[in-house]
Amino acid sequence: MKLGSCYYPEHWPENLWARDAERMRAMGLSLVRVGEFAWSRIEPEAGRLDWDWLDRAIDLLGDAGLEIILGTPTATPPKWLVDSMPDMVAVDAEGRPRRFGSRRHYCFSHRGYRAECRRIVTAMAERYGDHPAVTMWQTDNEYGCHDSVLSFSDAAAAAFRAWLEARYGTIDALNAVWGNVFWSMEYRAFAQVDPPHLTVTEANPAHWLAYRRFASDEVRSFNAEQVEILRAHSPGRANTHNFMGFFTEFDHHALGRDIDIASWDSYPLGFLEQFWFSEDQKRAFLRQGHPDIAGFHHDLYRGCAGGRWGVMEQQPGPVNWARFNPAPLPGMVALWTLEAFAHGAEFVNYFRWRQAPFAQEQMHAGLLRPDDTEAEAAHEAREAARVIAQLGTRQPAAAQVALVFDYEAAWVCGIQPQGESFRHDELTFAFYSALRRQGLDIDIVPPDADLAVYQAVIVPSLPTASEAFAQRLAALDCPVMIGPRSGSKTADFAIPEGLAPGSLRTLVPVKITRAESLRPGAGEAGDGWGIERWREDVETACDGEFVTDNGSVAVVRNGRFRYCAAWPDNRLLDLLVKRIAAEAGLECTRLPEGLRLRRTAGHVFAFNYSDHAIDTAPLDLGDPDIGARTLPPAGVAIWPTR
Amino acid sequence: MKLGSCYYPEHWPENLWARDAERMRAMGLSLVRVGEFAWSRIEPEAGRLDWDWLDRAIDLLGDAGLEIILGTPTATPPKWLVDSMPDMVAVDAEGRPRRFGSRRHYCFSHRGYRAECRRIVTAMAERYGDHPAVTMWQTDNEYGCHDSVLSFSDAAAAAFRAWLEARYGTIDALNAVWGNVFWSMEYRAFAQVDPPHLTVTEANPAHWLAYRRFASDEVRSFNAEQVEILRAHSPGRANTHNFMGFFTEFDHHALGRDIDIASWDSYPLGFLEQFWFSEDQKRAFLRQGHPDIAGFHHDLYRGCAGGRWGVMEQQPGPVNWARFNPAPLPGMVALWTLEAFAHGAEFVNYFRWRQAPFAQEQMHAGLLRPDDTEAEAAHEAREAARVIAQLGTRQPAAAQVALVFDYEAAWVCGIQPQGESFRHDELTFAFYSALRRQGLDIDIVPPDADLAVYQAVIVPSLPTASEAFAQRLAALDCPVMIGPRSGSKTADFAIPEGLAPGSLRTLVPVKITRAESLRPGAGEAGDGWGIERWREDVETACDGEFVTDNGSVAVVRNGRFRYCAAWPDNRLLDLLVKRIAAEAGLECTRLPEGLRLRRTAGHVFAFNYSDHAIDTAPLDLGDPDIGARTLPPAGVAIWPTR
Amino acid sequence: MKLGSCYYPEHWPENLWARDAERMRAMGLSLVRVGEFAWSRIEPEAGRLDWDWLDRAIDLLGDAGLEIILGTPTATPPKWLVDSMPDMVAVDAEGRPRRFGSRRHYCFSHRGYRAECRRIVTAMAERYGDHPAVTMWQTDNEYGCHDSVLSFSDAAAAAFRAWLEARYGTIDALNAVWGNVFWSMEYRAFAQVDPPHLTVTEANPAHWLAYRRFASDEVRSFNAEQVEILRAHSPGRANTHNFMGFFTEFDHHALGRDIDIASWDSYPLGFLEQFWFSEDQKRAFLRQGHPDIAGFHHDLYRGCAGGRWGVMEQQPGPVNWARFNPAPLPGMVALWTLEAFAHGAEFVNYFRWRQAPFAQEQMHAGLLRPDDTEAEAAHEAREAARVIAQLGTRQPAAAQVALVFDYEAAWVCGIQPQGESFRHDELTFAFYSALRRQGLDIDIVPPDADLAVYQAVIVPSLPTASEAFAQRLAALDCPVMIGPRSGSKTADFAIPEGLAPGSLRTLVPVKITRAESLRPGAGEAGDGWGIERWREDVETACDGEFVTDNGSVAVVRNGRFRYCAAWPDNRLLDLLVKRIAAEAGLECTRLPEGLRLRRTAGHVFAFNYSDHAIDTAPLDLGDPDIGARTLPPAGVAIWPTR
Repeated sequence: MKLGSCYYPEHWPENLWARDAERMRAMGLSLVRVGEFAWSRIEPEAGRLDWDWLDRAIDLLGDAGLEIILGTPTATPPKWLVDSMPDMVAVDAEGRPRRFGSRRHYCFSHRGYRAECRRIVTAMAERYGDHPAVTMWQTDNEYGCHDSVLSFSDAAAAAFRAWLEARYGTIDALNAVWGNVFWSMEYRAFAQVDPPHLTVTEANPAHWLAYRRFASDEVRSFNAEQVEILRAHSPGRANTHNFMGFFTEFDHHALGRDIDIASWDSYPLGFLEQFWFSEDQKRAFLRQGHPDIAGFHHDLYRGCAGGRWGVMEQQPGPVNWARFNPAPLPGMVALWTLEAFAHGAEFVNYFRWRQAPFAQEQMHAGLLRPDDTEAEAAHEAREAARVIAQLGTRQPAAAQVALVFDYEAAWVCGIQPQGESFRHDELTFAFYSALRRQGLDIDIVPPDADLAVYQAVIVPSLPTASEAFAQRLAALDCPVMIGPRSGSKTADFAIPEGLAPGSLRTLVPVKITRAESLRPGAGEAGDGWGIERWREDVETACDGEFVTDNGSVAVVRNGRFRYCAAWPDNRLLDLLVKRIAAEAGLECTRLPEGLRLRRTAGHVFAFNYSDHAIDTAPLDLGDPDIGARTLPPAGVAIWPTR
Repeated sequence: MKLGSCYYPEHWPENLWARDAERMRAMGLSLVRVGEFAWSRIEPEAGRLDWDWLDRAIDLLGDAGLEIILGTPTATPPKWLVDSMPDMVAVDAEGRPRRFGSRRHYCFSHRGYRAECRRIVTAMAERYGDHPAVTMWQTDNEYGCHDSVLSFSDAAAAAFRAWLEARYGTIDALNAVWGNVFWSMEYRAFAQVDPPHLTVTEANPAHWLAYRRFASDEVRSFNAEQVEILRAHSPGRANTHNFMGFFTEFDHHALGRDIDIASWDSYPLGFLEQFWFSEDQKRAFLRQGHPDIAGFHHDLYRGCAGGRWGVMEQQPGPVNWARFNPAPLPGMVALWTLEAFAHGAEFVNYFRWRQAPFAQEQMHAGLLRPDDTEAEAAHEAREAARVIAQLGTRQPAAAQVALVFDYEAAWVCGIQPQGESFRHDELTFAFYSALRRQGLDIDIVPPDADLAVYQAVIVPSLPTASEAFAQRLAALDCPVMIGPRSGSKTADFAIPEGLAPGSLRTLVPVKITRAESLRPGAGEAGDGWGIERWREDVETACDGEFVTDNGSVAVVRNGRFRYCAAWPDNRLLDLLVKRIAAEAGLECTRLPEGLRLRRTAGHVFAFNYSDHAIDTAPLDLGDPDIGARTLPPAGVAIWPTR
Repeated sequence: MKLGSCYYPEHWPENLWARDAERMRAMGLSLVRVGEFAWSRIEPEAGRLDWDWLDRAIDLLGDAGLEIILGTPTATPPKWLVDSMPDMVAVDAEGRPRRFGSRRHYCFSHRGYRAECRRIVTAMAERYGDHPAVTMWQTDNEYGCHDSVLSFSDAAAAAFRAWLEARYGTIDALNAVWGNVFWSMEYRAFAQVDPPHLTVTEANPAHWLAYRRFASDEVRSFNAEQVEILRAHSPGRANTHNFMGFFTEFDHHALGRDIDIASWDSYPLGFLEQFWFSEDQKRAFLRQGHPDIAGFHHDLYRGCAGGRWGVMEQQPGPVNWARFNPAPLPGMVALWTLEAFAHGAEFVNYFRWRQAPFAQEQMHAGLLRPDDTEAEAAHEAREAARVIAQLGTRQPAAAQVALVFDYEAAWVCGIQPQGESFRHDELTFAFYSALRRQGLDIDIVPPDADLAVYQAVIVPSLPTASEAFAQRLAALDCPVMIGPRSGSKTADFAIPEGLAPGSLRTLVPVKITRAESLRPGAGEAGDGWGIERWREDVETACDGEFVTDNGSVAVVRNGRFRYCAAWPDNRLLDLLVKRIAAEAGLECTRLPEGLRLRRTAGHVFAFNYSDHAIDTAPLDLGDPDIGARTLPPAGVAIWPTR
């Protein structure tokens, strides 16, 4: 695995560049990402391309022995470009055009901006496509960041209408499958259909789902245009995009099919603070991040582009964008780096080399402080590089458990939560976390993945599960767990004939006759476990495997297939995971709070996410090759596989 | 009392209609509401009216023995109509035109849309006005739903100016009574007056009150246009409108004077979740709704249209629109139905016959599930029909207590709460609930109702109480209780000369010299009771009947008149109700938590809203004719009047 | 010190005026403010000036022996004026033009409105400038109230561009110091720069800081235009503006340099409810206000216009604009009045003479009730007038502690809080309150004040501290305390070379290598004290004076200079204040909760802000001249200086 950093030569005096490159190499870094926000320097005025500075930077970094990831600058169109076609900006859901002055101020559907992007990407690819130091391209930057997937511009409305016509053929077909008769919402022509915002009450969920699919397709095609140009002009170079954490606004699996390598930007402390973690979790893991945040995304993005992946941006210290921005516990940056290694990353790139003292992210740490001195993270990067070199070549271990995740499922549950605490990504994360608490290794995969290679398959919730998916599950011979709301919707957001779980009923003979959402405190208890947030009425001939004291069927089992008809609490999740693992022949290791394991073919890694020392003796792994038997906070230990 | 359901033939294949009608009859239903969202099917294009399908549906349902409530479809203008006059949509308080894609996207003040409504209503009335199966008309649907009473469109602004001129005559008169001199807000012409939104700080409360009155009048006249057409073309048929719960944005008493029957849409679980009930109440009555939600509205709407009323939509299971959507306790649907009977409803219509699997309300339950099987509510509807048949003809019991409620009072308190916890409807509900906890029967009536028929009169809060109202109270010979802020405002939102309670001072010789609003926890205690949220300084020669330990006068009594100068807590309310009842010669029954009583001329009903069994023996009513002495959760017991 | 009231002759029948004036005098009042909202009466139509009524009012009030503070009416432009140039209104951050119907609906940058203001102010000044009764002018009213400093109108954008050009000279200079290269935000011309609102994510903080400075300058120049006219036409009369509480949107020190007297509007109960005080504080001081609210602003505004200041509006009872509006404890109005006296006010003006029964502030108390009877406050004003007369001439005591406050610092922390609980004014208030808990007297002063006259200097937080400021601190020979984030930014919002605290490092040799913000509950503890919200990593050769149990350096001392590298809790603040006072030779008096002291040259005042009696015997001051040794709630005691 290679280490690197994000570097902005345009931020610094040119006389610093050579020394920076030298210090990177000395720190154990061999990669450097450049260029992705530099459009105003590459093209200061319309048509006047200034390559000189970038030529010198790329030559110098390459000559220093660094491999370059070159970013296309399309996330930051300059002011002269926006002024030349003011309607290229996205329009937000309130109907307000978004204004210049930060980044991502473009509409994915604007044909004029698309042409400008093709032009600048072609120019960059022609200039640097064959440069020996350029080994990878990054398209744009963090698609969707700052709520930028959905646009309600005229350009988007026009493109949406064309997309609908392509999908549905006739307006009558659209009216029929959306059920537009419901409130006289029937259209007579595609030209009558608008984006679904600012309606008096909620718009038709089928309308929203179509708009989300359309918007996701727009991101994908925007990206594909760049990839096509890069492949044509830069043969032999990989391309990637840097995805974000806990972000489901477009279909990463779909976009991932168009790129060579999936990468993501890992900010565990910011994510802990900003997302739905409990106050207790935010307190316990303040300076570490929840122990499953990084792993979840590693395992997710490994499944997005055929297996190749990396961390494009790694948090090196406090960030600037969360409500509160603490510093990581000493050791965490090294831990996060080694954990990425253990999960199979090709690279980890720290964001950023040196903290820039100006503009929006001046309070965001880097490997160097603004005064050019090494920050804490520099030492940890060096230490991580040392350990990685010591470990040598890495082979993946055999897969254990597949967790099926689907972006469309997240949209469906977001459009129609039915109870405000039903969050699809939180449910998925809860299942993931339960598997990891038992020490299991997980692949997060799309519904169309090859599931036959796994010992167990978990489907936390897949509302639009297709017939084909049901058949592929049926063909498996391992335990399969299907979570609530699965099979509850057709492809166009209707309740299926015969009710949920639709075609999945062939696996577990249940019919969900009714669902209810529950406010906090309104759950039901079983014997040492419970359900909360969501429960379903189940009509079935099978016995309930888990039934609450009130008689609610929480889990139904039919041979190797289970259906979970509720939101399980952590205790029920633990019981389920242990049973499934036992049936799958997988060995569980009940881990102490905050400890996590991960295996490669040659090693077992342990990561201490807690803020206190943990004795690994009960794991029965002996003395580690690297690290100590008693793991300090933020400590890592590595044993050879026995 | 008749039972029925809301049915949408346009949602279903025509070959289901006959079987549906037959099943309705078999279930004990004799009413069916149709048509209220079907404009795009009745008139698929401008001017092309397609009656065929509706002819067949109405004939078929009528032939099956069902009485039809036919709805005018004006809540859902089709897209072609909106496109033909885009300025017909309402504009929200933020200044954004509301967009097509759900319902209620029209402005009550748009003259072009008014003409279209008259046209379609006339066409429907001409076609079906004489149809023998059509026995009632519903105008539009839930006026005001989704915050749709107020519009800030150009059409509304123009109509508002005309309304102001009609009310005030001269602009100087308006300036004078509004006190526009205050911040140089004086106008020189009616044409200068705008709606009161988006001002830098709050607009003049008199300006807001005028705008609310205007908007209420617009709803009323919009409805009256339809009623006039229906009466002309459909002689002998009753008309109604389906009002909502906890909704005070227009004057239902005024509109009620124009219609034959008031009806309302009863969703006790959704209302419990969405309104100001405490967390404890939301927990205790999760699957039942607060025990006074349904009764409050029954007693309110009975007073809205001269006494005739019904439940147009009855919740049959989980709904889709609250933050959380639990299922009712088994038995609740029957309980709610029988409670409506006990309160005097002419009909209860379940919403809806069969859960449609598509569009916005796909997660809203019906009597049938989407798979055409009976949902739980079907059995309860059948049981309710059986009991109602067994009980036979029903006569109302003599009235006991009048609770005076006024929509304008709600506007005044909403425009100027003075303390954010002063909610007029919550205070009204608190008085209502206290009366019901003592087993009393209540009529909720407007200030101009005939109060002489009651044993006691409660006026929770009536800021703009008129001289005439004071005189009518003075003429009563029963106990009268007047709540805080009553008489505190003139008709144009000023403090009356001589201060509050204005003309009510003739009843209780008090002067309110100052009022203060109190944050939670800042109340005062008396001996086993307390006040909270609001207290007034009282200047009076009378002794305080209830005085706090701090010396604050909570209640002043002057013979049969009382003034309550604070927001009373529940314990004080209980003490007050018991004293008033004793003075009125009304017998109180202190009911166990969650139990409620209601009397007709022939029967006493008890309803168990709690989640545990309640022994009715202490009520000393003996063994019930129907139901058991020990009432299970959601149980109903009925005794003959002794 | 004079007492007075705000009076609106235009609100009342002319036959009340004489009696009002007489009652004011009898109550001990000698000042009256008039005119500041009366534009629509002074000029009912464009160009038609109606002075008659105002002539009569001013003559009558003057003849009664009252001095008149005459307000310019520019906070309330009439409707005819707005209609004559509709683009004069401000545009809010959402892009919506603000609408007529309340007050402050103008944009400070609109040249046409500026001309209208000069015209009306000239006309008033010409008419009344020499009137013997007019002794003071107030410009406009509460600049910035209702979020009215920032406007995003075209007029503001144009003025901003000119302001930028004047400050930066070339667009390249602007790009360089803002670091616009960061996200390709570089401009090619000043004409390309927009206000920083509605960007996709945060705009450049340097962009925001420039916009805030520009907007502050616009307020200042708007005011200066009026002052220039008033000085020209009304020689010998003082001018003032009435500032607000806890309001930092423009630079009051800068504006204060242009006026003769600073005044402020004191609403202790409203401020307690609306600002960041804890629930415990809101409960404890419900009817008194936090004991430091009034003092803080007295001491702040005394430093704003060269030492002359007054209270232009004093809360006399419940107000109408807070979430909850309780009444003051009996005695508080007198206490607040005498406290202003003790802090050196030239006048206290009660808002308002008589409560107007109409329009927006009808629920805001006055000295008289709407029924013309005296409210509680009238008696207290009379009592305060009596005590003030008894005390006679007042001389200030020698200054003790300087607290340095800077408006720009508040903008910097507001633009980039970095942790959502870092509020600059709250931190300043915490230091102030700690000093007051020890009985010390404080001047709040700008960074360019003469600090050499103080025994101790506290700089709670000054991010853009200049080199010159550091040198002036270095020249002092008293203890100096410098708080967190001081020196952390350049003048154009970048991190300084060599890191924070920049040039202040010459005083305390520390380098802040990293800062972190902490969520509630994530602080660190020392021995009986703690830090919270914010902590910094400190690189220093000095020993830490206060170090947490975790080893975090909270305070570093270098001789007489200290740097506090964290948000100190109240216990640490108390320890620091006591040490600093001891080093400064200042005597501390640890005061009971809720008691506050203030010295003049001749007297010591004690104010009991608690809701229970406090025995002052432990203060060892003997028996007071005025008031009792045991101070009742809201009591004041006054001792001669020994």
